[in-house]
Amino acid sequence: MNIEMIRAAAGRLEGHARRTPLLSSPFLDEIAGRRVWVKPECLQHTGSFKFRGAWSALSALDPEVRKSGVIAFSSGNHAQGVALAAKLHGVPAVIVMPEDSPKLKIENTRAYGAEVVLYDRDSESREEIGARLSEERGLTLIKPFDEPQVIAGQGTCGLEIAAQAAEQGIEKADVIVCCGGGGLTSGIALALEADAPGLRVRTAEPEGFDDVARSLRSGGIERNNQLSGNICDAIITPQPGDITFPIMHRLCGPGLVVTEDEALRAMAQAFNRLKIVSEPGGAVALAAALFRKDEIEGDDVIVTISGGNVDAPMFIRALETLE
Amino acid sequence: MNIEMIRAAAGRLEGHARRTPLLSSPFLDEIAGRRVWVKPECLQHTGSFKFRGAWSALSALDPEVRKSGVIAFSSGNHAQGVALAAKLHGVPAVIVMPEDSPKLKIENTRAYGAEVVLYDRDSESREEIGARLSEERGLTLIKPFDEPQVIAGQGTCGLEIAAQAAEQGIEKADVIVCCGGGGLTSGIALALEADAPGLRVRTAEPEGFDDVARSLRSGGIERNNQLSGNICDAIITPQPGDITFPIMHRLCGPGLVVTEDEALRAMAQAFNRLKIVSEPGGAVALAAALFRKDEIEGDDVIVTISGGNVDAPMFIRALETLE
Repeated sequence: MNIEMIRAAAGRLEGHARRTPLLSSPFLDEIAGRRVWVKPECLQHTGSFKFRGAWSALSALDPEVRKSGVIAFSSGNHAQGVALAAKLHGVPAVIVMPEDSPKLKIENTRAYGAEVVLYDRDSESREEIGARLSEERGLTLIKPFDEPQVIAGQGTCGLEIAAQAAEQGIEKADVIVCCGGGGLTSGIALALEADAPGLRVRTAEPEGFDDVARSLRSGGIERNNQLSGNICDAIITPQPGDITFPIMHRLCGPGLVVTEDEALRAMAQAFNRLKIVSEPGGAVALAAALFRKDEIEGDDVIVTISGGNVDAPMFIRALETLE
Repeated sequence: MNIEMIRAAAGRLEGHARRTPLLSSPFLDEIAGRRVWVKPECLQHTGSFKFRGAWSALSALDPEVRKSGVIAFSSGNHAQGVALAAKLHGVPAVIVMPEDSPKLKIENTRAYGAEVVLYDRDSESREEIGARLSEERGLTLIKPFDEPQVIAGQGTCGLEIAAQAAEQGIEKADVIVCCGGGGLTSGIALALEADAPGLRVRTAEPEGFDDVARSLRSGGIERNNQLSGNICDAIITPQPGDITFPIMHRLCGPGLVVTEDEALRAMAQAFNRLKIVSEPGGAVALAAALFRKDEIEGDDVIVTISGGNVDAPMFIRALETLE
């Protein structure tokens, strides 16, 4: 896993992934007490950064292997990213999802052209289903984060941040990244190490699901005690990845942690001041910049908004935090 | 008023205004029955395209004249655009607003650094107040649309659309523009005439406030019978401008008209599929593309989202149209 893989992924993504802008608002600067720069990956295809990694992984496959199709386990943003990337490559995608997944997520994944295979969480193993389907049909598994070509794709977001920060004259800043398994975080960290060494990556996670912050502190991989019961579900994973964690440990500053209420209030500010739609898990980095300012250093802070796939009732909950 | 003024404005806006992206979603294509491309000016500074025209006008002033300051009559997007452009030029801005303007708009305009002068709509004339202040302080009036340097600034959005359409291989399409006084529409029309002659501008307006559609049909300037009572208030003006109308008449196709409900449903789709926040008046062009498809020609349609300055209760009303 190295910077050359990220640069190669950027070449493959050119003309396919969106180069998202870098947004700002004097109102956010006022709240944060420093300049806040926002990288809105909610504006990426399929509404999250996951399209980058999915495209990177698919485009890196041998065409003979790729044409048999790909498979992913996900009920969320990774599923949609893989489904659309496969469709645009003209190859089949199978997405294995729990049968109690939200209907909208199932429908969206199907609408992006994927075949959705549902399973019963209690009585079936998705790994067994996946292994059987892969063998029968020659499908290639696209892992959500602990896979070099996926990390390389997410890292292209970091190359853009480095270039956009340089355009704004920012040489030194914390870059806060919404962190689940660490694919986006480790990819951005490698990109910044090469192209903007004055920018330091920090992770943001929901309170009670801070496996990465604890792992960074202890120096070893720590697990979450629970995997559900938080509105930031899109970025909750059991533990950091075997490939992503050593990169994060080497390059990241201390992890930041925010409450659900702070995530909702950050969503409301992104609506009000940036005119963008973020999901709770996608807003934790902005929440850290706005509401945990004493834990951040420097005159500038850069944050990712990792996704915007949120339904109306949850978004209304966020808007209700205004005034 | 000509294309060279637009190109010169683009030079002055470089590094100051945002180059907004061109977004799309297969879900919107499905509804519209053709490919839909969205130019989200809600992501522009101050949340609307108005910053372009304001920056263009301020930057075109003689520095000696500019340093005394500028004045504008507006309670909305133009006020915020002028306020921020003046602040960034380091010169004073006075914004004359009705005293019954929404508190949030007054506060935002002040927060962008402007001095807000309130007047009583019933007993005072804003023109008299403006004339007195201008004389006393040497302020230059920045008109909202019928002013060549303002039109030139809005036209920079058209230069971007021409370049972005070419990148996507779109040679022929209707370009639907949310239309009030016609500053954005005429600026985009001039830019496309020069840089993308296969793209034809169409106006979009709210039902009952279709002065431009009627003017385009009759060939002369027609007025609106009323100026309030519609949620698309941001784009309602008494009549098209003396400078903007001849340009629109020469270059635009027939005007499109949508209902308030269609505007709300378009806002909901922009939330759901593009992850952006639009105001009702800013969503009329997307509404026309999605819900008036029989009145549009071609395989592709490009629409502007002109602004995103909407408060939470109105946005919630839009979200409630989903399902």
